[in-house]
Amino acid sequence: MYKLTASRGFSSDNCSAVHPRVMKALEAVNTGHVPGYGYDCVTAEADRTFDALFGRHVEVFYTFNGTGTNCAALAHLVRPHHGIVCADTSHINSAETCAPERIANAKLLTLPCPDGKVRPEQLEELLGGWQSEHVPKPSVLSLTQVTDEGTVYRREELEVLTGIAHEHGMTVHMDGARLANAVAANGNDLAGTVCGVDVLSFGGTKNGMMFGEAVVFLTPELAGEFAYTRKSCGQLPSKARYIAAQFLEVLHDGLWLEMANHANRMAMLLYERMGALPCFRAPFRPQANEVFAHVDGRIKWVLCEEMPFQHFGPEPDISRFVTSFDTTPEDIQRLTDRAMELYSKIEE
Amino acid sequence: MYKLTASRGFSSDNCSAVHPRVMKALEAVNTGHVPGYGYDCVTAEADRTFDALFGRHVEVFYTFNGTGTNCAALAHLVRPHHGIVCADTSHINSAETCAPERIANAKLLTLPCPDGKVRPEQLEELLGGWQSEHVPKPSVLSLTQVTDEGTVYRREELEVLTGIAHEHGMTVHMDGARLANAVAANGNDLAGTVCGVDVLSFGGTKNGMMFGEAVVFLTPELAGEFAYTRKSCGQLPSKARYIAAQFLEVLHDGLWLEMANHANRMAMLLYERMGALPCFRAPFRPQANEVFAHVDGRIKWVLCEEMPFQHFGPEPDISRFVTSFDTTPEDIQRLTDRAMELYSKIEE
Amino acid sequence: MYKLTASRGFSSDNCSAVHPRVMKALEAVNTGHVPGYGYDCVTAEADRTFDALFGRHVEVFYTFNGTGTNCAALAHLVRPHHGIVCADTSHINSAETCAPERIANAKLLTLPCPDGKVRPEQLEELLGGWQSEHVPKPSVLSLTQVTDEGTVYRREELEVLTGIAHEHGMTVHMDGARLANAVAANGNDLAGTVCGVDVLSFGGTKNGMMFGEAVVFLTPELAGEFAYTRKSCGQLPSKARYIAAQFLEVLHDGLWLEMANHANRMAMLLYERMGALPCFRAPFRPQANEVFAHVDGRIKWVLCEEMPFQHFGPEPDISRFVTSFDTTPEDIQRLTDRAMELYSKIEE
Amino acid sequence: MYKLTASRGFSSDNCSAVHPRVMKALEAVNTGHVPGYGYDCVTAEADRTFDALFGRHVEVFYTFNGTGTNCAALAHLVRPHHGIVCADTSHINSAETCAPERIANAKLLTLPCPDGKVRPEQLEELLGGWQSEHVPKPSVLSLTQVTDEGTVYRREELEVLTGIAHEHGMTVHMDGARLANAVAANGNDLAGTVCGVDVLSFGGTKNGMMFGEAVVFLTPELAGEFAYTRKSCGQLPSKARYIAAQFLEVLHDGLWLEMANHANRMAMLLYERMGALPCFRAPFRPQANEVFAHVDGRIKWVLCEEMPFQHFGPEPDISRFVTSFDTTPEDIQRLTDRAMELYSKIEE
Repeated sequence: MYKLTASRGFSSDNCSAVHPRVMKALEAVNTGHVPGYGYDCVTAEADRTFDALFGRHVEVFYTFNGTGTNCAALAHLVRPHHGIVCADTSHINSAETCAPERIANAKLLTLPCPDGKVRPEQLEELLGGWQSEHVPKPSVLSLTQVTDEGTVYRREELEVLTGIAHEHGMTVHMDGARLANAVAANGNDLAGTVCGVDVLSFGGTKNGMMFGEAVVFLTPELAGEFAYTRKSCGQLPSKARYIAAQFLEVLHDGLWLEMANHANRMAMLLYERMGALPCFRAPFRPQANEVFAHVDGRIKWVLCEEMPFQHFGPEPDISRFVTSFDTTPEDIQRLTDRAMELYSKIEE
Repeated sequence: MYKLTASRGFSSDNCSAVHPRVMKALEAVNTGHVPGYGYDCVTAEADRTFDALFGRHVEVFYTFNGTGTNCAALAHLVRPHHGIVCADTSHINSAETCAPERIANAKLLTLPCPDGKVRPEQLEELLGGWQSEHVPKPSVLSLTQVTDEGTVYRREELEVLTGIAHEHGMTVHMDGARLANAVAANGNDLAGTVCGVDVLSFGGTKNGMMFGEAVVFLTPELAGEFAYTRKSCGQLPSKARYIAAQFLEVLHDGLWLEMANHANRMAMLLYERMGALPCFRAPFRPQANEVFAHVDGRIKWVLCEEMPFQHFGPEPDISRFVTSFDTTPEDIQRLTDRAMELYSKIEE
Repeated sequence: MYKLTASRGFSSDNCSAVHPRVMKALEAVNTGHVPGYGYDCVTAEADRTFDALFGRHVEVFYTFNGTGTNCAALAHLVRPHHGIVCADTSHINSAETCAPERIANAKLLTLPCPDGKVRPEQLEELLGGWQSEHVPKPSVLSLTQVTDEGTVYRREELEVLTGIAHEHGMTVHMDGARLANAVAANGNDLAGTVCGVDVLSFGGTKNGMMFGEAVVFLTPELAGEFAYTRKSCGQLPSKARYIAAQFLEVLHDGLWLEMANHANRMAMLLYERMGALPCFRAPFRPQANEVFAHVDGRIKWVLCEEMPFQHFGPEPDISRFVTSFDTTPEDIQRLTDRAMELYSKIEE
Repeated sequence: MYKLTASRGFSSDNCSAVHPRVMKALEAVNTGHVPGYGYDCVTAEADRTFDALFGRHVEVFYTFNGTGTNCAALAHLVRPHHGIVCADTSHINSAETCAPERIANAKLLTLPCPDGKVRPEQLEELLGGWQSEHVPKPSVLSLTQVTDEGTVYRREELEVLTGIAHEHGMTVHMDGARLANAVAANGNDLAGTVCGVDVLSFGGTKNGMMFGEAVVFLTPELAGEFAYTRKSCGQLPSKARYIAAQFLEVLHDGLWLEMANHANRMAMLLYERMGALPCFRAPFRPQANEVFAHVDGRIKWVLCEEMPFQHFGPEPDISRFVTSFDTTPEDIQRLTDRAMELYSKIEE
């Protein structure tokens, strides 16, 4: 059996392990035969848990990963002559390698959003522009929550944005790969965090699960033939119980928000520690579980090799530090200690 | 924690649980942070294991599920004006809901193959037909191993078929969702079972794993930009270590073939038992882990409700029984006992 | 100016020239500036002519060519997880090089139809088969009229077929690249020839026009956003008046049927002449403007070089002769004379 | 026969009629039967004319319209995980309704280009950015000549841009819907106007033809299976002689440049006249056949109704006036006279 030697870092929340309770939940369903493709009792129970979570009936379809989930959801909402309005910095535009174009076939209509958030006036200007068969018909507004720049939409902001979209006959999709962190950032207000959203990519992998996401139709009557869409997009899990069991475990008693709140707190702790040190400059107070900071260029690459982080974000030359359910204060201490150790050698 | 009450049946090998050693392997890598998207040490080790398995360097890309794996592989091999030659009974044509058309965009050129196997003369006739820009250019031969009708290609058959394809400048893809069972059926001859294949969908899920398949380029120089293709097809796992660890565990000491050989033996046992009973008629000696049998119509539906099996196959009204790594002689006994119990009541 | 030296043959009706009246109609609109993309007065008049032709309001969209027209129409009717039921011998399956898959993205579900016509029992069997998210949802029935094998659906046949489709919630598309010849074959009964059809590819090019086809929504409420679909499929003509003027000219006083009836009569004449000669064997009485005949193998290739015809059809080794609005009895005489001249030399 | 009452305007060059010599050329080939799909002698002659025009062998494929031509060309050059770098203001991004996404399937990577021209530093910055399987692989540079903002690339600019592209292994496509006007603007220097271009969309319709464009492979070895691509994109003309004859006529003795030079001169005349009038403000000296001007808002809509022009361009509220081979000084006089008549009434 392959034994992994643990390392630690801040590259991404998908570099983390799986929460021990999730591992146990996987074992607990690892017995006997059940129907495949989601027709099993574990999946049925997970469906009920989603209903309970949202306090009303929602249609849930389990899927494998973030890109696939977004693309299947978008594929369902558009025809190929439609436009999907989104931030230029959104994951679907900036980090999914043409998957939306390949799978959903429609065009992304991007708005320049340096902080990741679409502003109402941008949406209105686009929708107020020339509309004819010579240009894509704006049909879907896709928002990312937490955005790829670490920001979080508040309830009031969503009310305005989704209101405009619905007035224009558009549907609203939300890429919630880090939804839990957004909910935590919004004081655990799930309803506010998805306010006005019709179809939600509900993330699991980045928040302590092993694999598995879900397309959640908050407007259930839009689900229609989505079972076919999921299958034709290559996102129908056969041994579905192993995704359902994970969601059940993290959702049924609030573990998902516990993990997210912890990650967010760790991001704030990291940000505060950085603020006290000369080798870091973190211009943005973190809203969820991502800290963007300039690291002194003389120590950056050595530091990064020992405790990995990444090198993109809302400003040129900035670095990104992501915390996770399993980030510890000791991790932060180790990062800052080592940074200062390297820094003091240089300043000598 | 959701506790599953075990049931048993013969619906499909993806209704089975996960092999206990695979579960343990998942736990063994569940610690600390590693790079995402396959840049981790577990994945590197799994890559080496695949090289060892094939006795030479192969390019391996881990993916989520069978349909997605086939479609990503085919998408890589074709342009949209190409034709993919396959059996009409193949999974890509008969059970993937337009996913090949959506994701790979090319056309399937189907040949009538009631037993699942493409015959050389069919391929030659198609390639000898009118070729021009008015018809798709036949570019890929896709074979299924084990076929959807439960049959297995032998080395000599593959030599002929892939020889014809290569002579015509085509590449050869193999859908190996049940590859292990085919290898077992071929006396554990892996090389013979994939003879002449360029790109292989290497199945894991149906053979005791939780999730995870792999696109294996047996002709490594064809891999090219496949990393991009995988991503754009929505099949790039972020927490890749959890797929790699499973493959490592089943491949490193032959567990994958142990499981497949067991499943095949169970299919043969089931077939033999059925042969002795008046309520079954199984016209085809199983080649791998699927038994097709006519069940007396008066007991079929009740029996099926208690020990599920499915209702399709190479003959009208036939049923399909799939065995798995965790099928036991007791399962078979229970099925046949119950069948005779129901049957004797009717015959009274 | 390039001067063409006229030759004659039977290869296809799109090898013919343009009817002189159509050329004159093009000149008659060749003056001044009009809005592009169909917002001109010629197009408006052509629209009215289509309404008059069908005796009720239809939605008409002009397009360039047959393949593009079919694909745009189908693209409008399907989602990528849908199936388009059609004859294996249909043009969309056998002569459009993956264009339907590329542009409409859905899968063709082909039925074996040696004479080109879908039979009701085939459609019912397909629709009565297993339906689930694992297989394409049959959503469109696409019929070809005249079929690629030269046969014509009668009103009663269409009533049955389209009735089944509509009962199952499908829409009906008709590829009418040779619609005029079918109407002529049906005693000039246009309504009967398109009975139950929702969306029609109305052919122009093969019947004496220079270029130009039309997507005609006989069920106008299905048109919806088709203007966008046409544009996104690359089939929106900018100088639309030059297509509209052609349709106006051929439709307004029945020229289109005059041309088609002539072509059909010429096919019958050719068939009758062939019947009297030992070097031809024409097993099928022509229904429209295509004659399929076995030509004595010893004279076939020489004959074909002088008066071209093609080599495919409902039987192996058969040849296809297509007549056109500009085929003359002298053309037929010349073909048969030359055939007998060659034949008599051989028989000597 | 429908008789068109002539009107005049400046909406677009595709609102114009067809040059009388082109009409005559169409008639001259309107006799007898020739092979379809480009296998005729007129097409062969047109091919030779293209070779002569470029002074070397080029591969030419005739097509129907601008959008379809661009999309077929791009479809040939990309795989779906590729990026096509272009100006945000380019026709393929701003006026083709997702056709590139639908047909070529790849993603457009847009650069902000208010004057329509890509600048070398923009291209270099994009190519110098993060490259990995998580983002599209930049594979094609698509330039528009004349740009959609009326500007023209000079030879030296193209040398730099295409040099960068080729150094990075990209191919270069040029959308030449108004190529003739660009060549005219560059002192009839065709070679300089397409300098470094691999694949060219060669426009015909906007320059006095009735319909018909061409994909010209200036790098002929890239053509490969383009015959299949053209067909599968719905852009293969059956009665190809009628496109070939038009190109032959306009290319063989320089009529195409005569028409373009006339249109460009008319644009300059219009610009100069506007400069002398208080009701117009034209901030950009025209480089080809498009004048952008602010029209006094009090007369704009009435004026536009009588002599149409359009309302978009490089500045908000600006209008676009396009001249054509058939624009006359009298047209310009009539526009400016009428403008001043309306203006003087208002100023009274």
